Amino acid sequence: MANERWDDADQIRQKRVAVAEQVKTLKASGGSAEAIAAAVRDLRDLDERLAALTVSDKTNEQDSLKTELDQLLKQRFFVVPSFEIYGGVAGLYDYGPPGTAIKENILSIWRNHFILAEQMLEVSTAVLTLSDVLKTSGHVDRFTDFMVRDTVTGQPYRADKLLEEHIDKMLDDPAMMEGRRAELRAIRAQADAYSQADLHTVLTELEVVASDTGNPISEPFSFNLMFGTPIGPSGKLHGYLRPETAQGIFTNYRRLLEFRGGRMPFAAAQIGLAFRNEIAPRSGLLRVREFQMAEIEHFVHPQRKQHPRFGNVAGQVMNLLPASAQDGNDVVQATKVGDAVRNGVIDNETLAYFMARTQTFLHKIGIDPARLRFRQHKSTEMAHYASDCWDAEIHTSYGWIECVGHADRSCYDLTQHMNHTNIDLRAYETYDAPRTVTTLVANVHKNKLGPKFKKDARAVAETLEEMASGDPERAQALEAELAANGKAMLRIQCKELDVCIERNMVEFTFVTETRSGESYVPSVIEPSFGIGRIVYCLLEHSLSVRNMDEDPRRHVLSLPARVAPVKVSVLPLSNHPDQRAMSTRLTEAFLDAGLSVNEDTSSASIGKRYSRADEIGIPFGVTIDFETPNDQSVTIRERDTMQQIRVSVKECVPLITSLCRHETTWADAFKQYPQFHQ
Amino acid sequence: MANERWDDADQIRQKRVAVAEQVKTLKASGGSAEAIAAAVRDLRDLDERLAALTVSDKTNEQDSLKTELDQLLKQRFFVVPSFEIYGGVAGLYDYGPPGTAIKENILSIWRNHFILAEQMLEVSTAVLTLSDVLKTSGHVDRFTDFMVRDTVTGQPYRADKLLEEHIDKMLDDPAMMEGRRAELRAIRAQADAYSQADLHTVLTELEVVASDTGNPISEPFSFNLMFGTPIGPSGKLHGYLRPETAQGIFTNYRRLLEFRGGRMPFAAAQIGLAFRNEIAPRSGLLRVREFQMAEIEHFVHPQRKQHPRFGNVAGQVMNLLPASAQDGNDVVQATKVGDAVRNGVIDNETLAYFMARTQTFLHKIGIDPARLRFRQHKSTEMAHYASDCWDAEIHTSYGWIECVGHADRSCYDLTQHMNHTNIDLRAYETYDAPRTVTTLVANVHKNKLGPKFKKDARAVAETLEEMASGDPERAQALEAELAANGKAMLRIQCKELDVCIERNMVEFTFVTETRSGESYVPSVIEPSFGIGRIVYCLLEHSLSVRNMDEDPRRHVLSLPARVAPVKVSVLPLSNHPDQRAMSTRLTEAFLDAGLSVNEDTSSASIGKRYSRADEIGIPFGVTIDFETPNDQSVTIRERDTMQQIRVSVKECVPLITSLCRHETTWADAFKQYPQFHQ
Repeated sequence: MANERWDDADQIRQKRVAVAEQVKTLKASGGSAEAIAAAVRDLRDLDERLAALTVSDKTNEQDSLKTELDQLLKQRFFVVPSFEIYGGVAGLYDYGPPGTAIKENILSIWRNHFILAEQMLEVSTAVLTLSDVLKTSGHVDRFTDFMVRDTVTGQPYRADKLLEEHIDKMLDDPAMMEGRRAELRAIRAQADAYSQADLHTVLTELEVVASDTGNPISEPFSFNLMFGTPIGPSGKLHGYLRPETAQGIFTNYRRLLEFRGGRMPFAAAQIGLAFRNEIAPRSGLLRVREFQMAEIEHFVHPQRKQHPRFGNVAGQVMNLLPASAQDGNDVVQATKVGDAVRNGVIDNETLAYFMARTQTFLHKIGIDPARLRFRQHKSTEMAHYASDCWDAEIHTSYGWIECVGHADRSCYDLTQHMNHTNIDLRAYETYDAPRTVTTLVANVHKNKLGPKFKKDARAVAETLEEMASGDPERAQALEAELAANGKAMLRIQCKELDVCIERNMVEFTFVTETRSGESYVPSVIEPSFGIGRIVYCLLEHSLSVRNMDEDPRRHVLSLPARVAPVKVSVLPLSNHPDQRAMSTRLTEAFLDAGLSVNEDTSSASIGKRYSRADEIGIPFGVTIDFETPNDQSVTIRERDTMQQIRVSVKECVPLITSLCRHETTWADAFKQYPQFHQ
Repeated sequence: MANERWDDADQIRQKRVAVAEQVKTLKASGGSAEAIAAAVRDLRDLDERLAALTVSDKTNEQDSLKTELDQLLKQRFFVVPSFEIYGGVAGLYDYGPPGTAIKENILSIWRNHFILAEQMLEVSTAVLTLSDVLKTSGHVDRFTDFMVRDTVTGQPYRADKLLEEHIDKMLDDPAMMEGRRAELRAIRAQADAYSQADLHTVLTELEVVASDTGNPISEPFSFNLMFGTPIGPSGKLHGYLRPETAQGIFTNYRRLLEFRGGRMPFAAAQIGLAFRNEIAPRSGLLRVREFQMAEIEHFVHPQRKQHPRFGNVAGQVMNLLPASAQDGNDVVQATKVGDAVRNGVIDNETLAYFMARTQTFLHKIGIDPARLRFRQHKSTEMAHYASDCWDAEIHTSYGWIECVGHADRSCYDLTQHMNHTNIDLRAYETYDAPRTVTTLVANVHKNKLGPKFKKDARAVAETLEEMASGDPERAQALEAELAANGKAMLRIQCKELDVCIERNMVEFTFVTETRSGESYVPSVIEPSFGIGRIVYCLLEHSLSVRNMDEDPRRHVLSLPARVAPVKVSVLPLSNHPDQRAMSTRLTEAFLDAGLSVNEDTSSASIGKRYSRADEIGIPFGVTIDFETPNDQSVTIRERDTMQQIRVSVKECVPLITSLCRHETTWADAFKQYPQFHQ
């Protein structure tokens, strides 16, 4: 249902772009007033249909689904607020048994899909991070949000969110003119991109006040989003809870390169927790203070970002939304990965390769392909370290949610760490064949400099040597001057000094040498997965309602078997000892086969027990009935189709194991075994 | 080698206990002087042999192994200090690729062995913990170590460690008399158990000074070992990084019980990080500030701690060291689990069941059974919440290391949380048959109390009601006095008040009712695994040296295949295109089979490449040689035996898959396939 809606909306949006283009062409080419008016009418029609669709989506189905999902998540203990019995803390959540199992299953698939299949180096580094490291990475200075306070109560607000809310309220005014509306929308769109000063100006001009009280607000000030804590008893060593797992990989780059025997390119990966001290966490599981990430750092030569397995994904079609297409209508472009790289839409093969692999991963765990797109960051929203970035966004009742970032972090991080630690974090590239290189060299006679320049002699020598490699043209000019006049003036920058150099102190000469390779600082391509967000989106995409018009509505969580928290439920129809014995035997057989199982021996009706299993997404139910002791057979029921087949006890465990490994499809099993009707 | 040594030592220790007993008996029974002298000589002999064994172990083999392991851990990037390029921080470590893989394999085995097989409820709760929760659990007040400072430099020391070091130095004095020696050893043994005042006295009497400078030290003061951090921007909400994962389970107890449909007993489990802000972390991986735990909380009726599967483990033999046997010689008692419970050595079946399951788990991952014991906590060392505790201790070059705690936390935590939140954390037990219960009830006439006692009337009523259920004898006496005298005196404790009660204010009567069950606060049995410590101990137990007398020595890490970080290496003998093609094909086949693989195409000799694989514990090597293109066969080499067999390319992947799943043994494979000799 929801899918069809979204397909509709997308079609209308695409049509709208075509009609808008038509209007433009008509106007430019001097088309008739009638034709123009007709096209504009079409445009308005499409806008109205789009608005209706969006509004109905938002207010009806999706809102109701969101509420029902939130209830289900708590009732069946998927996810609940942490320290619930103490009143909870915004942005902190605990995963109960089904939530934990889904999360762990997704991580296990992630490990196989990325780390094993791509032979990545997995590491597991400290969460507690030395402040020096995060100072270098830029997080201490720039990992901030702007905040304002209610000047009366002191209540803190995130400035961009307060601005957005304020504008939303202003836009509710039906009397507002379209020009003003567009202006406000433009301001709203870049609420999180303003500088501190500009933000102050905007907040003042729009007369933004504290939303809870209507009191005046303070000037915006920046608030660092990292949790800080002293390390050890001295109080002198300061640390932060890491805001991303990536820095633990960068600081180990030298060890990783050694582990690889110096061979480039390669990728390292890490699954672990990260923390952000959000000012005002909202949106449930989507903006939290503690979250699990799975990050990959692929190290590659900055000029050679081809990928050896790019051919495997080049034909894959992805929904791309490049920065240039983000005009408010945001029409995605279904593009083959190969074409996207060839046309320069995606910058390089490695970035594109990972985007394609991410798409396959998300499909594999059950994300609806129609509600997945890849959106390129606009230059204003790029993180301080990134040179290009594409987010995998998943559509939910909260709108489009960023779930996986794909950033080209260039050589920013390694360069920073190298500069701050003086430790060589470069890789070495051996040329295919040795290369002959000619360079200008300063041949400095230090014994002539010493007597004349005394304590400045070393600075003079260094200036001359640096000039030879850094500014050969100027060095050649100096050489010419020395040859002509026997002396020349030289500026010693670091000493703010001008000195007179003589002929016998230095000669600049060209030297030709053969090199077998060169050192370089690698670029980093980073796919970064927010696991909690993916779990939430997956749950929303998987939830449907069986009996729309009844009360209570029956919910089904159609998770792929590989992700389902429990693989099979075992349901004896009665308490008869023979049935209970078979139930125990089957349960143990499933456990031995490594399948999680839920033996439901409660006295509830079989329909109610199926329903409870459907709600937490158990794909298969094995029912032991009064015939079982006689025919040594059981009934297997599939969750989504509710179809049932009769299978011998002996075949039951191997069949369900095969179904859970996705080696057999239900359709095949349904054909192979006799159907069962209650 | 090391095993035999330890077996020897144990035998000598056991003999020593017998001889000491003999000496005692001889003296008590007035045995001949000669017989006593002979027995005492035997005793001295045994002591000397024991000392020699211990010293040689400590100074030679083990110390050298420790150094070599530490080097190997860094060189092959198992584990390195975090932020190494920034100089590191004591107590924080990063796991590199082989370390991470071993850790994850152990966790995966743990999940199957406990969570899946025992059908536990796995949860994943927040690391950042609200201070209120840890105040309730006792950690804010009691999770502390005593600390002293150098009064001149301010350098902090852990008081107990400083005391121990100081005593060790004193004991170095050869002139010291045995009586004084014993005294000092007794003090040293309880260095971490002194109260603040007693510790101050001891430090002063022994004239303990700062070990680095010889300066005087401050009085001991307590230092909380939790990392604290403010949550959110207000600065008012305070949190800590959790010091154990258990509290996340306790605070969710109500949700868990609901998830179980109210059925008891059950166990919940959690794998996750915990943090302790150690004052002065030492001993490498054994005392760290951030560590992975795997904890189980088994909730059970406090009077019924039987376990339904106890029969499965009752015959298992364990090395037990009860508190009563910890006399300095510490001779373990090899005991059947069933006997230990029957004889009251282990308090109850559930605690014993988990100890036995832990032992099986540790054997499964490769811990040497001869270097594993279960030591009971003495009453002085028990945590504030525990009523009985057994540690699984593993012997390493650092001595016996506590790796898994098994604590009976009684109903401490749930009771505390219930009292502080007023939320009912009790389970309900339905009796097999309804029970008739007679209780004394206070029938209070509040309309008579009000006029007389005014604002104290409520306290009087409550005192009477509480007396009926809490102290029925006293209530009956009061009833008798009222019947006889028409009035009686009553103490109102909470008001520190004595009042006169009259006959018409209350009657105490017996009421008989039928109850179908009762509520109770469950007890908790907690097995708690320190994963990092287990990894370290396992690495030490697995490491051996192939060529003792050569340099460099060749190290082999004999990890079970299920734990090994990489399952197979693929080694083409030359760079010939046919061999390289086969190498790529086999590598992909192993990856498809889900086995981690290391394709080593370097130009190093095959011996050197085997050696590199042995060092990180890769159990199987597949060598592609000049014959392979002709006979479509490869050589499989086993790491520990260095035996080689010739196997067809087709059979190679299934055979190694089966070996890695421990479905086939190497001995069987070696018999089945032709041997290969280089």
